[in-house]
Amino acid sequence: MMDLGISQRLHPIREAVAAMVRDEIAPLDAEYFAEVEVGDRWSFTPRQREIIEGLKAKAKAAGLWNLWSPVTGHALSTVEYAYLAEEMGKAHLAPETFNCNAPDTGNMEVFEKYGTDPMKDRWLKPLLAGEIRSAYLMTEPDVASSDATNIALSCVRDGDDYVLNGEKWWATGAGDPRCAVYIVMVRTAHEGPKHQQHSMIVMPSDTPGIEKLRAMEVYGDDEAPHGHMHIRFTDVRVPVENMLLGEGRGFEISQGRLGPGRIHHCMRAIGMAEKALALMIRRSLSREAFGKPLAQLGGNYDYIANARMQIEQARLLCLKAAWMMDQGDARAAAPWISQIKVEAPRIALEITDQAVQMFGAQGISQDTPLARQWAHLRTLRLADGPDAVHRRQVARAELRKYTQEKV
Amino acid sequence: MMDLGISQRLHPIREAVAAMVRDEIAPLDAEYFAEVEVGDRWSFTPRQREIIEGLKAKAKAAGLWNLWSPVTGHALSTVEYAYLAEEMGKAHLAPETFNCNAPDTGNMEVFEKYGTDPMKDRWLKPLLAGEIRSAYLMTEPDVASSDATNIALSCVRDGDDYVLNGEKWWATGAGDPRCAVYIVMVRTAHEGPKHQQHSMIVMPSDTPGIEKLRAMEVYGDDEAPHGHMHIRFTDVRVPVENMLLGEGRGFEISQGRLGPGRIHHCMRAIGMAEKALALMIRRSLSREAFGKPLAQLGGNYDYIANARMQIEQARLLCLKAAWMMDQGDARAAAPWISQIKVEAPRIALEITDQAVQMFGAQGISQDTPLARQWAHLRTLRLADGPDAVHRRQVARAELRKYTQEKV
Amino acid sequence: MMDLGISQRLHPIREAVAAMVRDEIAPLDAEYFAEVEVGDRWSFTPRQREIIEGLKAKAKAAGLWNLWSPVTGHALSTVEYAYLAEEMGKAHLAPETFNCNAPDTGNMEVFEKYGTDPMKDRWLKPLLAGEIRSAYLMTEPDVASSDATNIALSCVRDGDDYVLNGEKWWATGAGDPRCAVYIVMVRTAHEGPKHQQHSMIVMPSDTPGIEKLRAMEVYGDDEAPHGHMHIRFTDVRVPVENMLLGEGRGFEISQGRLGPGRIHHCMRAIGMAEKALALMIRRSLSREAFGKPLAQLGGNYDYIANARMQIEQARLLCLKAAWMMDQGDARAAAPWISQIKVEAPRIALEITDQAVQMFGAQGISQDTPLARQWAHLRTLRLADGPDAVHRRQVARAELRKYTQEKV
Amino acid sequence: MMDLGISQRLHPIREAVAAMVRDEIAPLDAEYFAEVEVGDRWSFTPRQREIIEGLKAKAKAAGLWNLWSPVTGHALSTVEYAYLAEEMGKAHLAPETFNCNAPDTGNMEVFEKYGTDPMKDRWLKPLLAGEIRSAYLMTEPDVASSDATNIALSCVRDGDDYVLNGEKWWATGAGDPRCAVYIVMVRTAHEGPKHQQHSMIVMPSDTPGIEKLRAMEVYGDDEAPHGHMHIRFTDVRVPVENMLLGEGRGFEISQGRLGPGRIHHCMRAIGMAEKALALMIRRSLSREAFGKPLAQLGGNYDYIANARMQIEQARLLCLKAAWMMDQGDARAAAPWISQIKVEAPRIALEITDQAVQMFGAQGISQDTPLARQWAHLRTLRLADGPDAVHRRQVARAELRKYTQEKV
Repeated sequence: MMDLGISQRLHPIREAVAAMVRDEIAPLDAEYFAEVEVGDRWSFTPRQREIIEGLKAKAKAAGLWNLWSPVTGHALSTVEYAYLAEEMGKAHLAPETFNCNAPDTGNMEVFEKYGTDPMKDRWLKPLLAGEIRSAYLMTEPDVASSDATNIALSCVRDGDDYVLNGEKWWATGAGDPRCAVYIVMVRTAHEGPKHQQHSMIVMPSDTPGIEKLRAMEVYGDDEAPHGHMHIRFTDVRVPVENMLLGEGRGFEISQGRLGPGRIHHCMRAIGMAEKALALMIRRSLSREAFGKPLAQLGGNYDYIANARMQIEQARLLCLKAAWMMDQGDARAAAPWISQIKVEAPRIALEITDQAVQMFGAQGISQDTPLARQWAHLRTLRLADGPDAVHRRQVARAELRKYTQEKV
Repeated sequence: MMDLGISQRLHPIREAVAAMVRDEIAPLDAEYFAEVEVGDRWSFTPRQREIIEGLKAKAKAAGLWNLWSPVTGHALSTVEYAYLAEEMGKAHLAPETFNCNAPDTGNMEVFEKYGTDPMKDRWLKPLLAGEIRSAYLMTEPDVASSDATNIALSCVRDGDDYVLNGEKWWATGAGDPRCAVYIVMVRTAHEGPKHQQHSMIVMPSDTPGIEKLRAMEVYGDDEAPHGHMHIRFTDVRVPVENMLLGEGRGFEISQGRLGPGRIHHCMRAIGMAEKALALMIRRSLSREAFGKPLAQLGGNYDYIANARMQIEQARLLCLKAAWMMDQGDARAAAPWISQIKVEAPRIALEITDQAVQMFGAQGISQDTPLARQWAHLRTLRLADGPDAVHRRQVARAELRKYTQEKV
Repeated sequence: MMDLGISQRLHPIREAVAAMVRDEIAPLDAEYFAEVEVGDRWSFTPRQREIIEGLKAKAKAAGLWNLWSPVTGHALSTVEYAYLAEEMGKAHLAPETFNCNAPDTGNMEVFEKYGTDPMKDRWLKPLLAGEIRSAYLMTEPDVASSDATNIALSCVRDGDDYVLNGEKWWATGAGDPRCAVYIVMVRTAHEGPKHQQHSMIVMPSDTPGIEKLRAMEVYGDDEAPHGHMHIRFTDVRVPVENMLLGEGRGFEISQGRLGPGRIHHCMRAIGMAEKALALMIRRSLSREAFGKPLAQLGGNYDYIANARMQIEQARLLCLKAAWMMDQGDARAAAPWISQIKVEAPRIALEITDQAVQMFGAQGISQDTPLARQWAHLRTLRLADGPDAVHRRQVARAELRKYTQEKV
Repeated sequence: MMDLGISQRLHPIREAVAAMVRDEIAPLDAEYFAEVEVGDRWSFTPRQREIIEGLKAKAKAAGLWNLWSPVTGHALSTVEYAYLAEEMGKAHLAPETFNCNAPDTGNMEVFEKYGTDPMKDRWLKPLLAGEIRSAYLMTEPDVASSDATNIALSCVRDGDDYVLNGEKWWATGAGDPRCAVYIVMVRTAHEGPKHQQHSMIVMPSDTPGIEKLRAMEVYGDDEAPHGHMHIRFTDVRVPVENMLLGEGRGFEISQGRLGPGRIHHCMRAIGMAEKALALMIRRSLSREAFGKPLAQLGGNYDYIANARMQIEQARLLCLKAAWMMDQGDARAAAPWISQIKVEAPRIALEITDQAVQMFGAQGISQDTPLARQWAHLRTLRLADGPDAVHRRQVARAELRKYTQEKV
C-alpha cells in the first residue's frame, strides 16, 4: 500500500492551516515587509514583533505548533506533513508562524537526535517554544561546498576548549536578533578517512571572536531580518563538551539532518508554484489586451495547462519521496530526495517566471510576491547541494542497478 | 485514502505478467517482425500464427487473459491494471498476448455497455476469446478530427437499412486478416444540436461496398499486419438493428469509450520509457569512447537522471489519473486523463530519442526496438485528440475553478 | 551585399571602446554601487559624481561620445554601432560613459526628429552634451501597456495650456537628480481612429503638480539613482507649444522612437551574454570539486558549447536586424526587430542563469555582477512590448506572405 | 568585411536553381518514390531512370551542374554555395539532379586532392559527369565511431596487394546499382601514433570478396535505391597503388574530406526547415477546427514565430561557418563547423516535428514529405560525428581561449 492521499485525521488540520495561511498570515506579509524598511533592518519594530508573535500565539492556541516534529506535534507522517508544508509555502510568514521554519527545524532535529541533556535544556527547549532562533553554519567562501569534504574552518583542541578560526557564509537566519545559537561544521583533522575529518560543534551566537561581516544578498535582497550572514571566527573558544557526538562525526550528523529539510523546502516550493499559477490565472482573466482577456491570447492556455501538469507531477513525486522516507530506509529514500530536490524548484521557478510575464512590469516589481518568490526559489537550486550534485546522485543510483546486476 | 501502490493481490499477477513479457514475449518480437516480411505482409505465415497463438494460449492457461476487463478478468481496478499495462509496453506482442490490445479493448467495452444481445453473441464473445479482431473507424481524410463534430461519413436510412458513403482512414487494426467487425462513427443528421448529429454503427468487415484503399504509413512503416487502413464506403448497406443505442448518440458512445483506452496507451508508454532508459543505460555502460564508458562522458549522467525523474513523475500522474477514474466521477477524471495523455507520450518520446542518440547509428536502425518504438509513440501525440486539444481541456478546467468562483 | 563584419574604420573605434570598458569602466562599477548605498540613494555623493563625470570626460576626450548618433557622432551605421553597444553591455556604467544610455538616446532622437527649435536649444543640446538626463513616460499602472492604445493619462486643453491628470510608472531614469525633462504619452481624444487619440508632450521634470510616488523595484532592486519611478500628475499645466507635432500624433512619434532603442538593448544583451559566459568559464576552470575543475564535470561542456552557439546566432540575428534598419525600409525591418527583441534577452538570461549556477551561492549574491545582470535582462522581456506581442508580430509577418500570395 | 549576402553573380543562378527545384524536381519526388516500390527496390525501373536522368540532363543543359565544385562549376564561394544548397534541401531528388549529392561530392574532393592520375581518369571523371556513383566506408558495427581511432577493418600487405577483412556499415549510397567505387577507411597498423594507424584505400565495388549483407534501415525505411549498406570484406585483394597518399594517412584525408560535406548537409537542413515551415503555415491557414483556422488557435502563432526565428539564426550561423571556411584557415573554421553541425539538424528537426503535429495523422504518413524528412534529418545528429562530439569540440575551443590566456 502506498497511500499518498490526505488522511482522515489530517483533513481538519490541513483545513485549519490553509485557512490561517490564507486569512490571517498572507494578508500581513506586505505590512511585515514594510516594517523591515523602518529603522535598522536587523532589529524588530514593535509592530513587526507584534505581527509575528501574534501569529505564533494564534498558531499555538490552535494546536498548530511544531507541526513538522514527529515527537512534539501531531506525530504526523512525512506524507501528511507535506500537505501542510505546501500550504505554508503560500505566505512568507507562515513557516515561522507554525514554528516550522528553516533552519530551526533541522537544528531542532540535531539537538533531539545528537544533543546532550544540557544542550536540550539550553537550546532545544526554547527553540521548540519559539523563544529563540538558530543558525547552521556550513558553507564557506573559499571552497566548493558542493563537495562538503572541502570544508576547512579550523577547530583545534586547546585544553578543555576548542579554538576556531576561519570564515563561514550563507549562515541563514544568523541576522535575526533572536538567533541565539549556532551549529557549526568544522575541520578537526587533516588525515584519516575523508568523511571523518569533520565535526559539528554548538556555541552561543554571542561567543567572543564571532564577527558578522555582512549579509549576503539574494538578487539584491539582504532578506533582513532573517539574513544570510558572512561570519568570521577569530580565536573563538568553545568548551569541549559542546562537540556533538565527538570528533570526526560531522558528516554522520549532517546526513541525519539534511533529508527532511530538503523535503520541507520542496513541499513549500509546490505551494509557491500553486500560488504563482493562481496569480497568473487571475491576472489572465482580469486583464485585457486587443479586446480580449489575456487568457484567450496566444499560447496562454498552454502555459496554464503546462503549469498544472508540472505541479501535479512534482507534488506526486514529493509525496512519493516523503512516503519513501516514512518507510524508514534512508538509503533507499536518498535518490528520491535528490529527485524532488531538483524538480520542485525547477517547476516552481518556471511557473513563477511565467506568472511574472503575465503580469508584465508589475510582475518584476514589489507589487506582487512573484519577484521575491522567484529569488527565494532560485536559491533552492543551490542550497543543500546544487542541481548537478543531485542529478549525479540520481544517475549513480540508476547505474548501480545495472552494475550490481552484472555481478 | 489514495493508494497508488501495488496491492497485495496484484503483486503475483504483476510478477507473472512481467516475467512472461521479459522471458517469453520480448524474445519473439524480432522473429515475428521477420515473418511479416515473408510473403504477403497482410496475411500470416504459419510460424507467425504459431508465435502469436502460442503466446495467447500460454497467457490464457496462466489466467492472464482479458486483464483489462473489470468484468471477465481479475476485476482489477484501473490503478492495478496500470501496473500491468506498463509491463505490456515492453514488448510489441505483449498487449495482444494478454488480449489487452487496442482497439479491441475499447470496442469490447462498447459492445459490453451499448451492444444488443445479438451483437454480444456475434462479436463480443469471440473478441473476448481472442478469436477475431475489430476496428474502430473514426477519423476521416477531409476534416479536422481534433474537432470530431466535423465527421462527415454519410449514413442515410433506406427502408430497413442504412446506406453509407464516404471515407475513413487510420482504421487501426483493419489490415489484420482476423479483423471481422467495424464500429463506425457516421453522420446521420445535419441539423439539431451539434453533438447529436452523429451515430455509431456496427458491421462485418466484409460487407459489400467496403474497400481498403491502402495502408497509412507511420514514418514509413505500414505496421503490417495490424495496419492503419484507408477505407472507402460505396453504398454500403447495414441493417438498422446494427445502430448502437439509436441515431444521434454517437458522441455519447465515443465519450464512454475513449477514457480507458487513452489511459491504457499512457500506461504502456511509461513501460516503453522504462525500456528505453534500460537500453540507454546498458549501452552507456558497455560502449566506450575516448577511453571511457559513454556513461561517464559529457552530459550523460544528466540524461539518465532526467529520464528517471521524468518517468517517476509521469508514472505517478498516470496512477493518479487511474485512481480518479476508479472514483467513478468521469467529469472529475477528465482533466486528469488529458494531463497524462499529453505527458506520457511526451516523456517517452524524449527518453526514446535520447536512447537512440546513445546508440548512434544503430539506434535509428532495425537493430534495436527504439526507432519503431519512437514512431509508435509519436502517433500517440495525435491519436484520440492531439496535444493541443488536451492542453486546452486542462486549461479550461483550470480556468473554470476561477470563473465559477467569481459567481 | 550584406556586410555584417567589422568595417575598417570601425576597427580602431571598437578597440578603443572595448579597452575603455574593460580597463577603466568595469573596474569602477563596484565602487559606484557602493557609493549609491551611502546617504540618500537618490542623490550623488561627491565620489559617485567624480566617477561618472570622470569617465564621461575621458570618453569625450577620446572622441567616443554620442557614438549612437548618426548625426553628431562618427556617423556609424546601425551594424557598426551594434559592435560598440555589445562592448558597452559589459559594464554597468559604460552606456552613460559614452552618452549612449537609454532612455536618453531615444529621447534625443525624438527631439532631433520632431522637436521645435526652442526644444532643441533647451533640451537636446544639454542632452547631447551629457549635462542633463531625461525620461520617457509611457506605461501606466491601470492598463495593459502591451496594447498601447489603452493609455489613458488625461491631457485636456485649457487656454494656452494643456492640463494633465493621471499616473505613469516605470519612468526609467526619472529618479536621477539630473533628470530635467520628461516626454509623456497622453490621451487627447476619446473618439476617432484608435491610433490618433494619443499625443506626446514635453515638460520640465519640476513642473508643479508632478509627484514622484515611489521607485518601482526590479526583483527587489530600486536601481537608484537611475530608478523606475511611479509618478502622479495632478492638474499639471504645460504650454501648448510643448506638444510634439500636434494632437493625435503620439503613435507616429513612438513608432519613430522605438526601433533603434529596442536594438540597442539587444546589442548590449549580447555583450552581457558574452560576459556571463566568460565568468562561467573562468569559474569552471578555477574551481574544483570531486578532484577536478568544474569544467570537466557533468554536462558543463554542453552548457559552455550551447552558450557559445546561442550567442553566435543571436549576435548574427542582431546584426542582420541592424542591417535591415540600415537599408531604410522601416516596415521591412520591423519583424527583424521583433525577432531579436525576443531572442537576445532570452539567450542572455539563460546563459546568465547558467553562470549563476556555476558560481553556486556566490552567483546569486552581490559578489558577482550576475544577479544584477539577470534582473536587468529580465526587464527586457517586458520593456518596449512583452515577448508575446513581438512573437505575434513575427507570426503575422510570416502569415502575410501566404495570405497575400493567395490573392 | 564579412559579406553574407547573395552576390550579384549568384542571384540569377540561385533563381534558376530555386525555380528548377520548385517547378521541375519537387513535383516528381512522389512519382519517383512510387517507382521505387515497383519490382526490385535496388534496381531502377525505366521510368525511375528516365526521371532522374531527365532532370540531370536539364540541369547540365542549364549550366547548373557540379555547383558544389570550386574547380569545375561556377567557382562559387562556400557562402554562395550555401544559398544554392538550401534550395536543394527542398526536394529529395534535387542534390542528385545538380550532381551535388553526398557522399559523391566528398569523394570527388578526395580524388581531386589526393588521387593519382589513373584514379582521376577512372573514377573522378565519370563522377563529375554523373555517370557513376560512389560510397565512403567509414563506420563499423563493433566500435564506437564517434572516436574514429577505434576503426578496425584489417588491411594487410601481401606482395603487391592489400588484403582486407572485416565489416563496414552505414555505407551510404552503396545500394545504388550505379555505385561503382568505394573509398574505405582501414587499419594498417596497431602501433605508433594513434592518428597514423589508419589508411584510406580505393576499390571497385565489384571487387571479389565484397558482400552486401543488408540495408540498414532509418526509422523503418531502407532508403532504396540509395541505401545504407552493411558490407562484409572477406580476403578482398586490392592493388597497393590503390592506397591514397600512403599508409597511415587516413586521418589526414578524412579531415580534408569532412568539412564541406558537413556544411552541405547543414545548408540543406535549413532548406528543409523552410519547407516544413511553409507546409505548417499553409496547413494552419487552410484547416479549420472549432470554427477557426488552426493558425488562430492556441499557441500556433508562437510556433510559427519561433520557427522563423530559429531558421534565421541557424541560416546566419551556417553562412558564417561557410564564410570562415572561405577565409582558408581550416583550424579556425573547425569550431564553426561543429556549431552549425549541431544547430541546423536540431532546429530543422524541431520545426519538422511541429509541422507534423499541425498536420495531425497526415503528418506522420506518406501523404506529406514531413515524416521522411524528419527521419533523414534525425540521421544528421549522428552522421559525421554525434552532437556530443561536436559540442565537446565547441566547448574545448572555448576553453582554450582561457587556458592559453593564462600562459
